[in-house]
Amino acid sequence: MAQPIRFGILGCARIARKVSRAIKLSPNATIVAVGSRSAEKARRFIDDNGLPDNTRAHGTYESLLDDPEVDAVYVPLPTSLHLRWATAAARKGKHVLLEKPTALCVAELDQILEACEANNVQFMDGTMWMHHPRTAKMRDLLRDSDLFGQLKMVSSIACFLAEPDFLQNNIRANPELDALGALGDIGWYCIRMILWSADYRMPRTALALPNPAKTEVGVLLSCGASLHWDDGTVATFYCSFLAHRTFEVAVVGSKATLTLSDFINPLQENSARFTFGSTDHVVPTELPQEVCMISEFSRLVGAVRDNSGSKPDKRWPSIARKTQAVLDAVKASFDEGFQPIQIAAN
Amino acid sequence: MAQPIRFGILGCARIARKVSRAIKLSPNATIVAVGSRSAEKARRFIDDNGLPDNTRAHGTYESLLDDPEVDAVYVPLPTSLHLRWATAAARKGKHVLLEKPTALCVAELDQILEACEANNVQFMDGTMWMHHPRTAKMRDLLRDSDLFGQLKMVSSIACFLAEPDFLQNNIRANPELDALGALGDIGWYCIRMILWSADYRMPRTALALPNPAKTEVGVLLSCGASLHWDDGTVATFYCSFLAHRTFEVAVVGSKATLTLSDFINPLQENSARFTFGSTDHVVPTELPQEVCMISEFSRLVGAVRDNSGSKPDKRWPSIARKTQAVLDAVKASFDEGFQPIQIAAN
Repeated sequence: MAQPIRFGILGCARIARKVSRAIKLSPNATIVAVGSRSAEKARRFIDDNGLPDNTRAHGTYESLLDDPEVDAVYVPLPTSLHLRWATAAARKGKHVLLEKPTALCVAELDQILEACEANNVQFMDGTMWMHHPRTAKMRDLLRDSDLFGQLKMVSSIACFLAEPDFLQNNIRANPELDALGALGDIGWYCIRMILWSADYRMPRTALALPNPAKTEVGVLLSCGASLHWDDGTVATFYCSFLAHRTFEVAVVGSKATLTLSDFINPLQENSARFTFGSTDHVVPTELPQEVCMISEFSRLVGAVRDNSGSKPDKRWPSIARKTQAVLDAVKASFDEGFQPIQIAAN
Repeated sequence: MAQPIRFGILGCARIARKVSRAIKLSPNATIVAVGSRSAEKARRFIDDNGLPDNTRAHGTYESLLDDPEVDAVYVPLPTSLHLRWATAAARKGKHVLLEKPTALCVAELDQILEACEANNVQFMDGTMWMHHPRTAKMRDLLRDSDLFGQLKMVSSIACFLAEPDFLQNNIRANPELDALGALGDIGWYCIRMILWSADYRMPRTALALPNPAKTEVGVLLSCGASLHWDDGTVATFYCSFLAHRTFEVAVVGSKATLTLSDFINPLQENSARFTFGSTDHVVPTELPQEVCMISEFSRLVGAVRDNSGSKPDKRWPSIARKTQAVLDAVKASFDEGFQPIQIAAN
């Protein structure tokens, strides 16, 4: 059996706790180092999360990237730091698992992807639900045109109720750190769900819904948009930090409709439900979806690391880029007074 | 016990079969006459639907309205005929249960409502799901601010897959008869669901989604819109004759979310489900929702008929008018190139 992929965690954001647990649970991955802005903070993260004592605590991000025993980095830094540190990681030959939103705009993401390609490292964004076996099962049903027919409409809603503290202090509402706010955070999932439903055919147009809720300094707290394809397919989404936890999806075809109510985070760790047509499905999973993500990423990284001359998978970077491109178009529609924005075909 | 309300059915549309069964099942209603454009057609309807042999078959609508033993009429005629025949019925002193959409525009509906008020007859539109006990149970939960908090967002989807024959021959796709197409038919339910969720607070703005599907002569087959309130509440809906049967609703509050998947027509006749927060509810009903509708209408009619000097209930006309007013605004947004349309407060 090949050596597990050795992860370094670049930044101690809260989400890193969940992902470090996932790396521990993944059969083909292990954590060897944590990097933070201080060695004390990195050490505290190691202790708090029960990582092995020999996990190295790096007091700078650079130091972690110079660690020769790190194969891959997980990057949960604020979005505004992604460009700098994801490209730096790629240049050091580290494979990159990058939290979403991948960047502030697709031009930034392109620089990251170019750095990954130039340095022959795998790229993947941290959209966990993509890796749940439920997603594969749903995809099989949606791709069966005898069962599903043609895609007609997708509705995706992702909300949670942020505490007042979150709205004032969390990086996801801080314009210097995560300027995309709710759109970049949970809106990313909505857009990904829509693109996934459409088998990644790009919509032609994005149109923001008027009157989004923003912080005083203009960070989106609650917003929605519609997406339109040339063949008449329509999608709408709504994302909010100001409403009750809601992760509702409806994918409407000409022959069946798929619905689920927990698309971002299944209510149970060992199984997940959805409805297709008149049938309720329950899909078991041996591993939580974030562990499935780590395993899949590590599998792809291992193929590159352990096979001289082999190239990283291109599908995950492509999916991330499409998601970011649609997100850019939605953002542009907000910024341009809710005008329709054309989306490039690729 | 008071004498049952004596119904005349004005027109033999397909939906009249379901409603005539509902009248038969309702404890306070009975069918005494059917009017059609020919007496033969009326007689056939009576026979086909197992109505009593002494049910009178009228060969003209006028003749039915002149029948002195008719207290109330159910009007399932094409929308373009509503103004003429609903006002004629009111002027003959008949109470009016009118199929949706109630009219081609709110100006027409106002004439109908004025005729009803002037002649002291009850008005109600035929939105059956409003009368299911599930709806009352859901309303209680939504109105409990400790449980639901503030309304943030409503999503409503209503679709069914019409046969090619329907699209060519059904009155709901005929511009002379039902010019509002899918918007008037199932879009009516979506708009009503949104207004009901908002406790009938009117949205400020309606904005049609671009690129609706239309017939060659311009009847809407598939379309959507968003509605916006001053406090930031948002609603979206989508309705289509071109997609699989889907009746999905999500009502998102700050403290809970309500969802249901069969809002127009419960999957079972004797109970209906919904989810509120993390709890699945099942609400039994002794009578199908269309029978509940007939009973409620007949109760209101009886109060007027049997109590000299009493006035018809005003709540149902008001709800119908608000629904039609929002529908008008959505239609105007389509007609004016997807511009936002202001909606009057009442």
